[in-house]
Amino acid sequence: MTGGAAPPARDILAMNVFDAAARPDEPALLARRRRNFGAASVLFFEAPLEVMRGEGAWMIAVDGRRYLDCYNNVLSLGHCHPAVAEAVARQSAALTVNSRYLTEGVERYLEALKATLPPALSNAVLVCSGSEANDLALRVAASATGARGVIVTEAAYHGNTSAVADISPSSWRRARAPAHVRIVPAPSPAAFGEDVAGGFAAAVAEAAASLHGAGFGLSALIADTIFSSDGVHSGPAGFLAEAAAAAHAAGGLFIADEVQPGFARTGEAFWGFARHGVEPDIVTMGKPMGNGFPMAGMATRPDLLARYCEEFGFFSTFGANPVAAAAGLAVLDTIALEGLQARAEAQGRRLRARFTEIAAVDGRLVAVRGAGLFFGLELADAGLARRVINGMRERGVLIGAAGRTGETLKARPPLTLTDAEGDLFAGALEAALAAA
Amino acid sequence: MTGGAAPPARDILAMNVFDAAARPDEPALLARRRRNFGAASVLFFEAPLEVMRGEGAWMIAVDGRRYLDCYNNVLSLGHCHPAVAEAVARQSAALTVNSRYLTEGVERYLEALKATLPPALSNAVLVCSGSEANDLALRVAASATGARGVIVTEAAYHGNTSAVADISPSSWRRARAPAHVRIVPAPSPAAFGEDVAGGFAAAVAEAAASLHGAGFGLSALIADTIFSSDGVHSGPAGFLAEAAAAAHAAGGLFIADEVQPGFARTGEAFWGFARHGVEPDIVTMGKPMGNGFPMAGMATRPDLLARYCEEFGFFSTFGANPVAAAAGLAVLDTIALEGLQARAEAQGRRLRARFTEIAAVDGRLVAVRGAGLFFGLELADAGLARRVINGMRERGVLIGAAGRTGETLKARPPLTLTDAEGDLFAGALEAALAAA
Repeated sequence: MTGGAAPPARDILAMNVFDAAARPDEPALLARRRRNFGAASVLFFEAPLEVMRGEGAWMIAVDGRRYLDCYNNVLSLGHCHPAVAEAVARQSAALTVNSRYLTEGVERYLEALKATLPPALSNAVLVCSGSEANDLALRVAASATGARGVIVTEAAYHGNTSAVADISPSSWRRARAPAHVRIVPAPSPAAFGEDVAGGFAAAVAEAAASLHGAGFGLSALIADTIFSSDGVHSGPAGFLAEAAAAAHAAGGLFIADEVQPGFARTGEAFWGFARHGVEPDIVTMGKPMGNGFPMAGMATRPDLLARYCEEFGFFSTFGANPVAAAAGLAVLDTIALEGLQARAEAQGRRLRARFTEIAAVDGRLVAVRGAGLFFGLELADAGLARRVINGMRERGVLIGAAGRTGETLKARPPLTLTDAEGDLFAGALEAALAAA
Repeated sequence: MTGGAAPPARDILAMNVFDAAARPDEPALLARRRRNFGAASVLFFEAPLEVMRGEGAWMIAVDGRRYLDCYNNVLSLGHCHPAVAEAVARQSAALTVNSRYLTEGVERYLEALKATLPPALSNAVLVCSGSEANDLALRVAASATGARGVIVTEAAYHGNTSAVADISPSSWRRARAPAHVRIVPAPSPAAFGEDVAGGFAAAVAEAAASLHGAGFGLSALIADTIFSSDGVHSGPAGFLAEAAAAAHAAGGLFIADEVQPGFARTGEAFWGFARHGVEPDIVTMGKPMGNGFPMAGMATRPDLLARYCEEFGFFSTFGANPVAAAAGLAVLDTIALEGLQARAEAQGRRLRARFTEIAAVDGRLVAVRGAGLFFGLELADAGLARRVINGMRERGVLIGAAGRTGETLKARPPLTLTDAEGDLFAGALEAALAAA
């Protein structure tokens, strides 16, 4: 599994998407959409959903129907959280400017953000997207190590720029792994048996040796610390530490891609890496960082960033703007004020227990994984997953797919999910599974 | 000038920046800034400016002093334009969601945007930053041509991702041109004499031949159509057509990077390439697209985008969200409603005449270049440019530097600039130049 020419994983984006060819009588908006987006159009569900409004855990379609949004990992505080909407409105009317000017709000935000991170990671660079954050992280690692090789998991997704598409097997259609990239299985008992930590670390060490042998050296092991597109591999907590140590032993850095698990979603910790008791060299973040406002970032040690800046002048026009800082601060404040990390932990535990009950009755629900409000529910096969996802949508609950073949249901409800909403979610899953 | 190992241009980002070492008694906010941003901190002016509020053409510092902002190319409608601030506030409170769901506002925006473009470029991909747009454009070109070689001008800046940093000589500090990149001089009489169009095209053809000879082939000629960081090379209008034809003849595409000249700034046309009577294969855009809201995009022909999507699944979480669409539509509507393209043309012409008068008196103002409200004022040397920029800041007017050595003043006031504001700008230039 560590060869550069490993067969690409199936395109997970294609797993729960509307098939345009199947519907010649398409509605007018869909026709416009296809004319405007062309081949880059990606729409969820067998029947795409036109939405009009969002509030809390809910999205309201144009026909007035309400859908419980258990998939959107950006609106982590709920749709249109008033604290964020108000911060964005206020700051948009007062000032937005690039970071070549000083503004107190940006520094206040960075200090609040850094307070959630290991103290050694005291420099932060704000950018616009998780893709940009991971792209920069790769370059910081390359400058620091003088090496180019990167190790990723087999169905990883790290973003959409050239450099990160190269390390995102889940986006490859006809493309193969570039020469400087090695693929390892996601850390799961299915791949490594009982010793997930040891097996995963051994795979990383073997991949690193292969990269050294090919002359690339090891620049970084990069991992989404909840292994979301790999199928959500969350436990046993701690399994990342040995792999990170293996990367370090081979001269590489460990980059924690927190774009999906970050900002309290996993319940047990504010960041996914913290569940594993490991301190990354670089942390990247994005998606829920501004609860909908486009922002992302990278935190690292000052010496690593300085090394990179000796080679390249880095500047982001939109990164670290005062509106992003206001949105980001409102997100951090809300997580603390509403106790959302503890809520994610408690609600996640309650729902996993419910899902485990369902699995006891229906063996096609093969495994219940996840941490906090990040769920991976492995089904018997991808066809069943597709039917369940569309069946839940018919029942008014939105989720998606993950995993190497799309066999795993992926769900990430807002951290504010109430018991009643959680029961709706579990009930829809049970009914859709029974009918599928 | 076409060798892959041409000496890198000086880092233009370093040309008008605060030198931290020169100021040990730094104020508290500056110290916080340096702790948070580390080596990636870039601040304008010998004495960095802390700003608090923006309105129209003005930024208000924390000490209450008002500065005429003649540099910020993002707030092209003026700071905090009410139409955009209101659109962002309204949509942020109603819905923001990724483009895997249908929303009418996104399609309406794309149709309004496409109405400004050549009809053949009928597919648009929205992303978060000009960097992401150019990064994607390079991959679309590579898929279409099967080639990797790229031609850029000697002090070009196309963004901050790995792939576009490779084609941005102005960001290289110790880095050298990658093997697949060829550098050509910016199109100016200084480089090519009287026949700028022919000389520039010949340089492109020679660079393309070198790339073919090295086995890379030609993927694209990419040019910021106002050659901003090269020192603002705007005329004679039309000089790009021959170079684009040379790129096509060598099997490559022509990518118009409109991140800086786009959205009516050059006055004569809505897009910079339109001044040159050339139709690009790909157009990228960003900066003023949302008048401060982070958004960017790429437009191309459906066949080119489809070719790329056969190889990679492309998706941007934040691109094409309804808030961006609302901001972008407010920008397009405001440009039309306030007649800003015509205003940019007229005010630009008036101010260039004023600057030409100043040049007639002071020979250290070597050349007055630009189109619409995009000015390049070439001075005798970079030291003089630096003194003038800081002298104008002392006089309450903000501009910046460009050009291979930083010898050119770069100015881009808002398109709404009034005669009185224009006179202030010109008066400050005259006074700062006289004192420098």
